[in-house]
Amino acid sequence: MRVVIALCCLAVAGLAQDNWRSEGVIYTDHSPHVKLHTVPVRAVKIEDGFWSARMRINVERSIPSMLEELEQHGVVDNFLRLTGKSQAPRKGPVYTDSDIYKWIEAAGFVLQSGDRPELRKTIDRLTDEILAAQEPSGYLNTYYQNERRDKRFTEMYRSHELYCLGHLLQAAIAYYRATGNRRLLDGGMRYANYLIETFGPTKRPALTGHPELEMALVELYRTTGERKYLDFAGYLLSGVERERLHLTDQQIVYLFSGIPFTSRTEFEGHAVRAMYASCGATDYYAETGDAAYRATLERLWKDLVNHKMYITGGVGSREAGESIGLAYELPNAQAYGESCAAIGNMMWNWRMLAVTGEARFADVMERALYNGINSGMSLSGTLYCYRNPLESVGEKIRNEWYDTTCCPPNLERTFASLPGYFYATSAKGVYVNLYDNSRLDWHLENGTGLQIEQKTRYPWDGAVEITVTPARAAEFSVFARVPGWSQATQIAVNGVYDAVRPEPGEYFEIRREWKAEDRIEVKFDMTARMIRANPLVREDAGRVAVQRGPMVYCLESADQAGLGSLFDAELTGTFEPFSEKFEGDLLNGVVELRHTGAVAEKLFEDEPLYQASAPSARPFKPAELTFIPYYAWANRGMSSMEVWVPVDQSATVR
Amino acid sequence: MRVVIALCCLAVAGLAQDNWRSEGVIYTDHSPHVKLHTVPVRAVKIEDGFWSARMRINVERSIPSMLEELEQHGVVDNFLRLTGKSQAPRKGPVYTDSDIYKWIEAAGFVLQSGDRPELRKTIDRLTDEILAAQEPSGYLNTYYQNERRDKRFTEMYRSHELYCLGHLLQAAIAYYRATGNRRLLDGGMRYANYLIETFGPTKRPALTGHPELEMALVELYRTTGERKYLDFAGYLLSGVERERLHLTDQQIVYLFSGIPFTSRTEFEGHAVRAMYASCGATDYYAETGDAAYRATLERLWKDLVNHKMYITGGVGSREAGESIGLAYELPNAQAYGESCAAIGNMMWNWRMLAVTGEARFADVMERALYNGINSGMSLSGTLYCYRNPLESVGEKIRNEWYDTTCCPPNLERTFASLPGYFYATSAKGVYVNLYDNSRLDWHLENGTGLQIEQKTRYPWDGAVEITVTPARAAEFSVFARVPGWSQATQIAVNGVYDAVRPEPGEYFEIRREWKAEDRIEVKFDMTARMIRANPLVREDAGRVAVQRGPMVYCLESADQAGLGSLFDAELTGTFEPFSEKFEGDLLNGVVELRHTGAVAEKLFEDEPLYQASAPSARPFKPAELTFIPYYAWANRGMSSMEVWVPVDQSATVR
Repeated sequence: MRVVIALCCLAVAGLAQDNWRSEGVIYTDHSPHVKLHTVPVRAVKIEDGFWSARMRINVERSIPSMLEELEQHGVVDNFLRLTGKSQAPRKGPVYTDSDIYKWIEAAGFVLQSGDRPELRKTIDRLTDEILAAQEPSGYLNTYYQNERRDKRFTEMYRSHELYCLGHLLQAAIAYYRATGNRRLLDGGMRYANYLIETFGPTKRPALTGHPELEMALVELYRTTGERKYLDFAGYLLSGVERERLHLTDQQIVYLFSGIPFTSRTEFEGHAVRAMYASCGATDYYAETGDAAYRATLERLWKDLVNHKMYITGGVGSREAGESIGLAYELPNAQAYGESCAAIGNMMWNWRMLAVTGEARFADVMERALYNGINSGMSLSGTLYCYRNPLESVGEKIRNEWYDTTCCPPNLERTFASLPGYFYATSAKGVYVNLYDNSRLDWHLENGTGLQIEQKTRYPWDGAVEITVTPARAAEFSVFARVPGWSQATQIAVNGVYDAVRPEPGEYFEIRREWKAEDRIEVKFDMTARMIRANPLVREDAGRVAVQRGPMVYCLESADQAGLGSLFDAELTGTFEPFSEKFEGDLLNGVVELRHTGAVAEKLFEDEPLYQASAPSARPFKPAELTFIPYYAWANRGMSSMEVWVPVDQSATVR
Repeated sequence: MRVVIALCCLAVAGLAQDNWRSEGVIYTDHSPHVKLHTVPVRAVKIEDGFWSARMRINVERSIPSMLEELEQHGVVDNFLRLTGKSQAPRKGPVYTDSDIYKWIEAAGFVLQSGDRPELRKTIDRLTDEILAAQEPSGYLNTYYQNERRDKRFTEMYRSHELYCLGHLLQAAIAYYRATGNRRLLDGGMRYANYLIETFGPTKRPALTGHPELEMALVELYRTTGERKYLDFAGYLLSGVERERLHLTDQQIVYLFSGIPFTSRTEFEGHAVRAMYASCGATDYYAETGDAAYRATLERLWKDLVNHKMYITGGVGSREAGESIGLAYELPNAQAYGESCAAIGNMMWNWRMLAVTGEARFADVMERALYNGINSGMSLSGTLYCYRNPLESVGEKIRNEWYDTTCCPPNLERTFASLPGYFYATSAKGVYVNLYDNSRLDWHLENGTGLQIEQKTRYPWDGAVEITVTPARAAEFSVFARVPGWSQATQIAVNGVYDAVRPEPGEYFEIRREWKAEDRIEVKFDMTARMIRANPLVREDAGRVAVQRGPMVYCLESADQAGLGSLFDAELTGTFEPFSEKFEGDLLNGVVELRHTGAVAEKLFEDEPLYQASAPSARPFKPAELTFIPYYAWANRGMSSMEVWVPVDQSATVR
């Protein structure tokens, strides 16, 4: 089945039958235009620490309860009714098929970390039910049936048919990489083949409408070696069908598809679509090396990180159209910040990291993961944020179900796939991308076995002990990522500090002959800092955010004893350090930060909305402000919260 | 036809055949629960000055070109096709009928100021075409025809059937008050009668869906004396049909109808719906005196002016749902501020003013009129804003047509009706609500003829000379409104200053025996001032707006010679006065304001989005900032603009 690509730069386990065992979250071993090669999820064990708690709740609570929700809301019945096993009417919006696919993908990633026979059986049952609904042609969609049958592929700008196929393929690949079982994969390929036979420049015109299929097709190409999948992804990205499909200007913006991806100069439109399109374009570049894609991706990335990304790694300012705003349009209370968009941001930066090997992409990945993604799932694992605002006067932001329930299974697949993001390899050695107690059991690209163990209390503590154990002594490089926020990092090997100072936002290369039990000691600079936004972000004027390590902090009303309203408080004494303390019983254990502040003596809400600027000072009284990590907010009932806190202007240097 | 209401507190021209001549924008002469009685539009001539220019362009350009647009977009054909005179398919959204009705209302107000035979003929032609489409039952709606006929009155939450009827009635009343011609009025009544016969607590359930009909029905009651119209308005406001109509929580919020109006505690949902509902409720209170309505209206008004109104008088923070945000949610660049909502705000405060005689309502009316409404129409009179943001990086904000074209004819009817807002009467005398060169030819409530003439350069200058000429010497009061922004007002009668200091935000009562040519000299305090918002409006933190008289000012890029970007500038020297100059050639003549400011030496856009707050100062260089009135922005091509300008924090007293 596999086509061996000439000039592929390595020869790992090979292209044999059980190649699925070595394929990562994305599989870049044979991608000609990447710097980094991924490591399979199964090669990394996340051990007791920060992420293990999240991953455990994900497997034990989130994934099981989500399946119940999906079944209760008829998402599975939608398939059963097509084979007469259910008499219920079709339920939910046009895109519900994707929700069960995304759930299967999440479960597939769980199985990549170790077999769970019950979960496997559930997927096999769902696979039966899904494939039973597939038509002989390969077409598979529960919405475009009966009276809507004639509309198949006629309203791609809204139909989500290709989006659902993309998620079907990603689910099938995840399960295949977990088990080697190709049933769902073969079903997905039948649908993809039908699509490719029917659509194209000389056939009927296609549009992804909601980009997603592009990256799925490239991954299918990576999995099967069949070039047609890559080519069709290229066709979708080429955006040549605008005229044949009569797409409007507004659709071009909103859909982030329909015109050549390489003609894009900035992010706009629907945030998740924009992120997923960029994932697909990066995957396509990784295989083709098309320079126009690389230039576009770099331009878009700069637009995102310089103009349009929340400090949490969230993306999407506007509720209207769930869309990205203009440059510097980053409202806080009104932030949309859909969980899926932050996930898309992480997925995209993961791909950019693979292509470039540059730590700036890992920085964005980490920012999104610890903050804008992590906030999306409650500590209980059963409630989800769809929006992730940076300020709130109190609202029911976490819910167990949404009629558009894209975010919950998306969060689940992200947490389940997490081990696959920690490490990568290149011909020169191994990359450490993320930090947590973990154990890698893999090999260098020359085949030499390699174990790496991390011991740390990261992200609460900046010390990480990394033990490197090659199967035999060998010269290679360990690239330890130095996050951009760590202004003074110390790295020692076997107790000896390197003369070179680790630069923030770079990988620190340690090249030497490594032998068993060699020890790297890393100390990151975890000083809690006040961060200010570019003054062009008007919503953050006169305010600072607090960040400690990768964590963005916030004020939540539950922690401010004696404070009337959160929004009457400000930070003072900006040059004083924060006091910090790990509170094991608070929010499953967090480092809490405290700082001096002040609170207005007369509540602001008693003042008029507008008044002439008067020369009388508004009296403040001192108050201590307590900060918790942003991701942990809204886990103690209704509360008010803010990330960007007003700061005493007289003490702030502009 | 008219029912004489017992206990009506005055006896003006009477209830005779030509009573239409004395009816104002709303007609409150017989409303038992009002303090002020309106004056007909025809009794006031606006003479050369600020508003005459706007009104002239409205009559000469806006109204004629809008009819062309409406006809080109098929709004009139929609009626013609129902009588076979047009074969074109129905065009436009569900509510287009209302657009031609609103246009007729605008033209009707023009005719109230003086006959224009061509315009009258046009209305008569449109009346023929509209009434020809009316069904024998009275039903009249171009959307619910043919395949949609079965849906009549079955989806009132979205159908706009009652909304369109409301606008039909308002158009008919305006034309009747202009000409005494009842044809359109009788047609509207047939539809209203059909509705009332079919719907009600013991019949089929009704919902306005988009409030509007309530105020129209009360006005119809005022015009005809038929109580059933008032009662049906009360039924709609009573919101008792929630269960029978299966309205969701979300609909209740968005529609601002469907539950008892008197159960509302705050503004939320669709801004225009909320304003129109409040207009109807105030009209209903004016006739019934129901205390629960008065209490609700007062509560809502405080919510609006203390939490949810833009400094421009605009309402509606969010594009999503065109809705009012939470308290203090007043974004600037993203402000929705639909022109119709600012108009609704003015219409509501006009009604509250009539009910209470309190100047605080006139203050809001004036704020909306000079700023958030006036910005809605271009100086050319042919381009309209739908949204009225308070900040822009440059966008095509003015357009000649919108598919949802509610705002353009709404602006036109507002400007055409303006004379009717200037004066009012009570048993004690006459109220001067607004200032501009104008001439009132009316009478006191005891029948004594009264002429009032204003000579002024208001709003550019604060001096207003008011000549009061009763038909015979008589004791009565002249109530001169002192705007809330005029901190030091001087008022002299025949050259003698009153001992009592005029209070801002009150009517100043001058009671004496007036004789012909008595002269009041008013000097308002036109000092340009920096205004700050409540700190809870986070978007305005560290910023000030500039207001001079009733005018809110803004920075527009066109006026800032040598400034790279508007958004790199800040105001400095906050205790220095503004310099001001009337520029006759600028924007049809405006007072321009200048103030010292500063601009960043390094453009903000070259800085990162987020960085640690550093103790190094950001260098600024001096710059002069030039302000123009907000309403006049976006009349010189694409430009950036801001109302809330950052202010040098070290100089600002908090």
